Amino acid sequence: MILQAVIDIAEICVRKGVEDIVLSPGSRCAPLTLAFARHPKLRVRTVPDERSAAFIGLGIAQQTGKPVVLVCTSGTAAYNYAPAVAEAFYQNIPLLVLTADRPPEWIDQLDGQTIRQSHIYGGHVKRSFDFPVDTKHVDAQWYAARLLNEALNEAMAFPEGPVQVNIPLREPFYPEPGEEFAYSSNVKIIEELPSGFGLPAQSWETLNQELKQYKRVLVVAGQGKRDEALHQEVLRFCQANGAVFVTDTISNQQVAGETINFHDVFLGAKHLHSADALQADLLITFHKSLISKNLKLFLRKQTNLQHWHVQPAGMVADTFQSLTRIIRTTPQDFFRQVAEGEENLSHPSDFAQTWTELDQRAKAFLEGFQENSPFSEFKACHQVLRNLPAHSILHLANSMSVRYANLIGVADLEGVEVCANRGTSGIDGSTSTAVGSALSTEKLVTLLTGDMAFLYDRNALWHNYLPHNLRVVVLNNHGGGIFRMIEGPRSQPELRPFFETEQRLTAQKTAEDMGFQYLQASDAASLAALLPSFFNPSAGPQLLEIETSSPENFAIFEAYRKQVASKLNI
Amino acid sequence: MILQAVIDIAEICVRKGVEDIVLSPGSRCAPLTLAFARHPKLRVRTVPDERSAAFIGLGIAQQTGKPVVLVCTSGTAAYNYAPAVAEAFYQNIPLLVLTADRPPEWIDQLDGQTIRQSHIYGGHVKRSFDFPVDTKHVDAQWYAARLLNEALNEAMAFPEGPVQVNIPLREPFYPEPGEEFAYSSNVKIIEELPSGFGLPAQSWETLNQELKQYKRVLVVAGQGKRDEALHQEVLRFCQANGAVFVTDTISNQQVAGETINFHDVFLGAKHLHSADALQADLLITFHKSLISKNLKLFLRKQTNLQHWHVQPAGMVADTFQSLTRIIRTTPQDFFRQVAEGEENLSHPSDFAQTWTELDQRAKAFLEGFQENSPFSEFKACHQVLRNLPAHSILHLANSMSVRYANLIGVADLEGVEVCANRGTSGIDGSTSTAVGSALSTEKLVTLLTGDMAFLYDRNALWHNYLPHNLRVVVLNNHGGGIFRMIEGPRSQPELRPFFETEQRLTAQKTAEDMGFQYLQASDAASLAALLPSFFNPSAGPQLLEIETSSPENFAIFEAYRKQVASKLNI
Repeated sequence: MILQAVIDIAEICVRKGVEDIVLSPGSRCAPLTLAFARHPKLRVRTVPDERSAAFIGLGIAQQTGKPVVLVCTSGTAAYNYAPAVAEAFYQNIPLLVLTADRPPEWIDQLDGQTIRQSHIYGGHVKRSFDFPVDTKHVDAQWYAARLLNEALNEAMAFPEGPVQVNIPLREPFYPEPGEEFAYSSNVKIIEELPSGFGLPAQSWETLNQELKQYKRVLVVAGQGKRDEALHQEVLRFCQANGAVFVTDTISNQQVAGETINFHDVFLGAKHLHSADALQADLLITFHKSLISKNLKLFLRKQTNLQHWHVQPAGMVADTFQSLTRIIRTTPQDFFRQVAEGEENLSHPSDFAQTWTELDQRAKAFLEGFQENSPFSEFKACHQVLRNLPAHSILHLANSMSVRYANLIGVADLEGVEVCANRGTSGIDGSTSTAVGSALSTEKLVTLLTGDMAFLYDRNALWHNYLPHNLRVVVLNNHGGGIFRMIEGPRSQPELRPFFETEQRLTAQKTAEDMGFQYLQASDAASLAALLPSFFNPSAGPQLLEIETSSPENFAIFEAYRKQVASKLNI
Repeated sequence: MILQAVIDIAEICVRKGVEDIVLSPGSRCAPLTLAFARHPKLRVRTVPDERSAAFIGLGIAQQTGKPVVLVCTSGTAAYNYAPAVAEAFYQNIPLLVLTADRPPEWIDQLDGQTIRQSHIYGGHVKRSFDFPVDTKHVDAQWYAARLLNEALNEAMAFPEGPVQVNIPLREPFYPEPGEEFAYSSNVKIIEELPSGFGLPAQSWETLNQELKQYKRVLVVAGQGKRDEALHQEVLRFCQANGAVFVTDTISNQQVAGETINFHDVFLGAKHLHSADALQADLLITFHKSLISKNLKLFLRKQTNLQHWHVQPAGMVADTFQSLTRIIRTTPQDFFRQVAEGEENLSHPSDFAQTWTELDQRAKAFLEGFQENSPFSEFKACHQVLRNLPAHSILHLANSMSVRYANLIGVADLEGVEVCANRGTSGIDGSTSTAVGSALSTEKLVTLLTGDMAFLYDRNALWHNYLPHNLRVVVLNNHGGGIFRMIEGPRSQPELRPFFETEQRLTAQKTAEDMGFQYLQASDAASLAALLPSFFNPSAGPQLLEIETSSPENFAIFEAYRKQVASKLNI
């Protein structure tokens, strides 16, 4: 006999809009497994390694915008979810994490797979609930259903995020032969209508009044989803105010000719950080994190900078140490309202012109550098990104992949969506996240990753759902090449053994095990020859490995950095 | 400039007896990496996947009995340690977990690899410390050194366990060129002399007095290390009191002819659970967890049972729901003192004789069953264990491996040490733990594991320290075969997709990637032919894969269970 309250968890999830479930195998979670697996309105997948399962769930939720339910058995299974839960917390991705547990009387009694699961994710969930152990009493049934509603409402309320429900379960876990197994038709639903987060009229007046004081306005978009209406509002605002719109690759706001896309290139020239012509007096930011360390350093160096951050609710970071105002409305509402209040400028401001010219020169410099430089992983990334199909999805692993991509940009690619786990910037779940994404779209999904990130997370591919639309590019320099790029570790004798951590594997055997077609390139010509078929949508899952040498990668990237410093000026 | 207080962490660890460090690569942890890597008295290894790194550290500490230091960078790295930290907590293994962190002012500021690391392991560490951010003031220096001492003393105090020190670090992470890098010669050391945990004389009198009331005493050893002196004291006690000494495989107390080793076989006959002749009136237990569910069920069924548990300090589990007395002294001291107080019996009690006879019959039955049954993973385990070299180390993965081994036993093998992660019984770190063990001994280390556990933790082998003395036996039934052994999931239509979770891989490509010689067996004859060379100490790392069919494994194990129920009686 499975408790009706447990069976109905699945029904409540369906009614609240959940469509995808990622299970991991286990005994304690069997009642949940059955409740979800038997529900006709759910896509249910099972992934053995909980670390990967959780990142796959995150990738699905990131792609669909709907909460994904994770279900694991008791014990350390729940802890293997933790890296993805933390990423979801900082990246604001809605996950409902259901951890099956023994009933409380069996905790710490030396029984198998029992740890202290209640509130196990500490500060990395929006809330944590304990499902009632006994649901015989009607109040307990009300509580169980209410709690599930609260958990899902919380996960979906802005800013979205992970929520844990720990579910203690007593045997029996399975229905008796002949026992009816059915979802209640009248489950309790608490609907939450989200706020539109409008500002009071007086606040708009103040903002419009104050905006007039500023002559040099920088708008910087952090990591976020593409939103065409928002993009247009920001452009209109910029035009009306002579403002400059700076976009990292992961902002999903890059459009050639409309936004500043090569700031990470030209702000690599540190002497520009104090150039008067680039100084802003007001910085307006929205969405989440930035990749460009050069931009961060530039902004942190500004004196007399006012910084307004627009975010309807939730924790706000003072990323540039200059935050002066938090504006609690949506970015789209903000830019529309303040753009309306201003007169239109008929031509770009000097300030905007300086930034735009520099951006164009940086782009020309970068393309020229790539054309003339020997093959390296930087050049390989450039080739891959310049050949990416329009309207596809790009996942960037952390460490060097995301950094190269931020220099190279995607501004010329129509409708390309860029994802990266920049909530916590771990290398632990990039492949799994890309798998989750690919499972939730018909678009082509390309993951650009390194050997360390790929091999770390190879269990991302250990299940029975290999997506046909997944393309993985592994930049293999046989270690953590990023450490050679940094002066500190590069000049230590410990570089190779303890920082780069030399590793000898290629991705070939993993690719073969997992059912990928395996391709290899080691120079620009072979890479160029492979890319068209690699990106062929009907080619099935492909893994393309590009082997390079870490010292050569460093030498070429160092040459790039030196040329940036000497050639880019105003 | 690296802070002297950070450099001296390594020196304090050395002075407190630490010998092994497991690092994972990272930037934020660079000052710790340098401090440990440069210390001439430490063995320092680096393992990229933190989940495996932590279990390898656990395996080393389990083997050496000395605390192992783990060092990881900031962010989700720390969370990847969590499964091993929980296992160490419940298995009482001393780990000092040093998590590098950003300074507190940068938490939640959208900077890379930053999460809320302080106290991140919740209830699964003995204590959690925050290393001071600023150590300029002399009081802060005293605090930093004192805190490290407290952390190590806590990790090593009985019952041992994991302790976290979260270490916020500001740049620069590396010494300037020419800067001196030296350990202080006068680091602060607080030595802790552990208690001997003797009981007051009056308690001994009470115990000796009360012991006389009991005629049927069962002594049950939980998971623990082999201790010859303790073993002899228990045997002497049993002889003096007509008591019975019951030992699971993981207790490391099994000796043929001395202890009851096949209780997990004969207590599989459920009708014996109420047999009068087996009923005890006093149960005395020591050490940690049991594998035998049959023994647990038998003991939980006893009425009028007094249960004394002997454990010097720490949390005590009421595993059989019958606990009546906790005795705070060492098991060795207890059995010596109470044995002395009793008259010697010149011949075994009827009670002991019943248990012994049943044990002998169970052994004969098991050996006969194995001889006559077709090949299956149960038989393969039997072949492997009966051919295990004396004085070697056996690691048992969770799920079926440890259950088969508990039926088969190691009582005839001289000096074989058995390890298993039965603190939390996860499948996540068995291979890594065996690797840590093999790195810390010259003995042969054999891991008996399944395909799910092996593939889950394959990053255990992804580093540059493959131990020559490691032997891995993978029982590959292409899924979680345990779920077919349980009636509940077996009778659900979800068995294959959601419980067994069919997976198609073999371990071959992983073995080849990792530098193992790969061997295969699929019947008794080929297995028998391979085992001598497999266990040859000079053969180098070997992986032996035994493929079987899950339905056949079930049919044979079911036949075994039916024969147990019908053939074993008193």
